[in-house]
Amino acid sequence: MRMAELSRRSGVPTATIKYYLREGLLPQGETTAPNQADYDERHLERLSLIRALREVADLPIATIGRAFAAMDGYRGDTAPEYLSIAIGALSEPLDVPDGEAGQYQRAEEEVAQLLELLGWDVDLDSPGRDDLVRSLVGVHRFLPDLIADPRQLVPYGKAVRTLADIEIPDSYDPAADPAAILRFSVLGTVLFEPVLLALRRLAHTDRIRSTQATRTRRRSRR
Amino acid sequence: MRMAELSRRSGVPTATIKYYLREGLLPQGETTAPNQADYDERHLERLSLIRALREVADLPIATIGRAFAAMDGYRGDTAPEYLSIAIGALSEPLDVPDGEAGQYQRAEEEVAQLLELLGWDVDLDSPGRDDLVRSLVGVHRFLPDLIADPRQLVPYGKAVRTLADIEIPDSYDPAADPAAILRFSVLGTVLFEPVLLALRRLAHTDRIRSTQATRTRRRSRR
Repeated sequence: MRMAELSRRSGVPTATIKYYLREGLLPQGETTAPNQADYDERHLERLSLIRALREVADLPIATIGRAFAAMDGYRGDTAPEYLSIAIGALSEPLDVPDGEAGQYQRAEEEVAQLLELLGWDVDLDSPGRDDLVRSLVGVHRFLPDLIADPRQLVPYGKAVRTLADIEIPDSYDPAADPAAILRFSVLGTVLFEPVLLALRRLAHTDRIRSTQATRTRRRSRR
Repeated sequence: MRMAELSRRSGVPTATIKYYLREGLLPQGETTAPNQADYDERHLERLSLIRALREVADLPIATIGRAFAAMDGYRGDTAPEYLSIAIGALSEPLDVPDGEAGQYQRAEEEVAQLLELLGWDVDLDSPGRDDLVRSLVGVHRFLPDLIADPRQLVPYGKAVRTLADIEIPDSYDPAADPAAILRFSVLGTVLFEPVLLALRRLAHTDRIRSTQATRTRRRSRR
């Protein structure tokens, strides 16, 4: 199909498609004449993926490009590894600002302690590890009392680990298309995050109301 | 203190401070002469809060403004309610685009079903409820098979509800400064979210590796 049809079917304006082509987020079409290229279903599929990552997860173009590069470059044959690669590419690598080495070192030590307490089989370059260090530095900077000891995080780790048993199957169908598994994993990770955070906010309201209800009952019994 | 000292002590450039003053994120200083104003510790405190919400949580200026308006306007006396107000102000209200009423209605029905299954004491305008509807619409649009039934979300709800018991105390010290509780609640909510998501990504890696280890053991036993 031509650019105009690709734009119409994907719902993405041509100027935006050209931008994605320049940034390498979308592979070039097949050149059919000077200044004319042909696009196919794979372009449509990828545009839908970009829309999801931009509109729902609000991911930066650079992060999406990194995730695609990891997805396109992967040639392994162990299906669950796909998920790890996808999540890894979505994480921002650690970039320690000048003069903050001490704060990052403290957070790195806390993460190491926490992972030992949880007994998880992860290592320094596992997806999420840099994100955890960075977010702990943020917590310590602005709310020094919130997490005084990494042991406080153990219940959170146990909770998300229990959920991981539900989220990630024991095995994938060996006949499944690896690209489809990868798309499902990348999207599943980023689309589900706002669901989890929204549920947490609702759970807080229920918790607040239940403490107030308890107090009211206690008062009325006096 | 003068603007220059406020900038030096907060680490926020004067141009940015002037922008926050124009947008109403920072209250005006006390005018001491034409074109000269005096700022105090409250300005410093609020600048630190803005930095945290911008740098760590990457919140839009409009959202921060809304949260401050809710914080400044609250005159209640029930301490735990502070948290609810703070979280509510951080949530984006639902804005249903033209032609998507059906998708939003489906998500709203799923949220209602889920809340009934969980037995939570929350209602239509509880913080997080609009976020949950919006994020479910996003999931359905881009991964129609991910959440086929709201019952799938019950384990997530139970997990975050258990954590809420740890996060929100049974009661607050009645002598505590309400503004301090509010600051702690707003920051605690937004600073902790990236911690939880990073832990989830690490838990996925551990889950993936444990399924692979199981398979390897099974194979080697044959």
